[in-house]
Amino acid sequence: MQRIKMTISYDGTAFNGYQIQPNGRTVQEEVQRALKQMHKGQLIHVTGSGRTDARVHAAGQVIHFDTPLSIPLDNWTRALNTQLPADVRVLRAERVPEDFHARYHVVRKTYHYRVNNRAASDVFRRNYAVHEARELDIDDMRMAAAHLIGEHDFTSFCSAKTDVKDKVRTIYRIDIEKENDELIFTFEGSGFLYNMVRILMGTFLEVGRGDRQADELPSILEAQDRSKAGKTAPPHGLYLWEVSYS
Amino acid sequence: MQRIKMTISYDGTAFNGYQIQPNGRTVQEEVQRALKQMHKGQLIHVTGSGRTDARVHAAGQVIHFDTPLSIPLDNWTRALNTQLPADVRVLRAERVPEDFHARYHVVRKTYHYRVNNRAASDVFRRNYAVHEARELDIDDMRMAAAHLIGEHDFTSFCSAKTDVKDKVRTIYRIDIEKENDELIFTFEGSGFLYNMVRILMGTFLEVGRGDRQADELPSILEAQDRSKAGKTAPPHGLYLWEVSYS
Repeated sequence: MQRIKMTISYDGTAFNGYQIQPNGRTVQEEVQRALKQMHKGQLIHVTGSGRTDARVHAAGQVIHFDTPLSIPLDNWTRALNTQLPADVRVLRAERVPEDFHARYHVVRKTYHYRVNNRAASDVFRRNYAVHEARELDIDDMRMAAAHLIGEHDFTSFCSAKTDVKDKVRTIYRIDIEKENDELIFTFEGSGFLYNMVRILMGTFLEVGRGDRQADELPSILEAQDRSKAGKTAPPHGLYLWEVSYS
Repeated sequence: MQRIKMTISYDGTAFNGYQIQPNGRTVQEEVQRALKQMHKGQLIHVTGSGRTDARVHAAGQVIHFDTPLSIPLDNWTRALNTQLPADVRVLRAERVPEDFHARYHVVRKTYHYRVNNRAASDVFRRNYAVHEARELDIDDMRMAAAHLIGEHDFTSFCSAKTDVKDKVRTIYRIDIEKENDELIFTFEGSGFLYNMVRILMGTFLEVGRGDRQADELPSILEAQDRSKAGKTAPPHGLYLWEVSYS
């Protein structure tokens, strides 16, 4: 058996999230279906670096699986892409030691969040960026973000629907760049709790609109109370961008 | 009665083209359905500047229609967008003289064609640009394009499936710009024949790949024979960008 690590990209629009579940189409299911084709009907279980929700995109999700097949790495990419639907693509395949684990060995994750900030919504970006008609104050949002850098208990920025006990995470970087009428937020951290990026984004958007002050962020963190933070921003602006391993 | 001119944008991915037809969802049908809602069930026929094929996009298609309603122009935009599906948006509404005609009075049309020129296809652009893995020679394509500027009989670049007799058109400009790994072709002309931009593009792509020489273009034009030009390029790279009136 060989363990293979794959970097995959998907357009989340037509998926009910990454992880297999009873209802709706999932990315894991499509990848496993394609692998089953290549393995003459044998089920190959894949493990992802983490879930993504319905309509959330991935530019660099990482998965691993074990296979008895011994084929060149380039052929893995090509063969799987032939079997996969057009909204999932394998970008890279690597051979890894058999103790490599796509979820447990993550040391850093990067997410992007895109906001289309102009008066009229753009039909071509409706599934790929969140539309915000009100002008957002980037400086205020940068000040808000600065309060979150470092190690904190992010209970206030975590969906109540989670079993995770330890809510301490480290955020290394939150950047906000403007490209024409699009704002691109980059979040880099040791790991992120359930809905954490979307709740951070919802809070930043309230600051950007002037509905909340940047200097409220420290007290929101301290409260360790989900209700103190902003609304959960919509899923379709979010991209799992990169997953790094030691 | 008042004549209204509207500029609309649509994502062509889920449409079987602009013009109403027996099979499949069309842009005209969706716009007329929304107008019918606003007119208490009365059919309001809309006239477009021209058709676009299935999967072809529009950033600035122009339509006109007559209405007995007398409502502020801004409200037209807002009210129609409320009724329209998310893949069609009204950008602007203007009151025009009753002899204005969206098709007959066109003096200039601009199209864009997008090519994603890199090794691996991009899942987020699969419906919005044509993927070309082989490196394209931009200089060669620019030389090919230069031969087409001006007034010519474009029979060689027109689908045989057309009733139009006069195939003389004027191309004012063909630009090719590179933005990261994307090539954006701009075509500006007095008007374009059926499939003309896509056949021009198919021919340019053959030149860009080195499968055809730029200096073959004059003899292709002269032949007035569709079979001498390149293949028709796929629809999803094409955008009706702007329609101008005198």
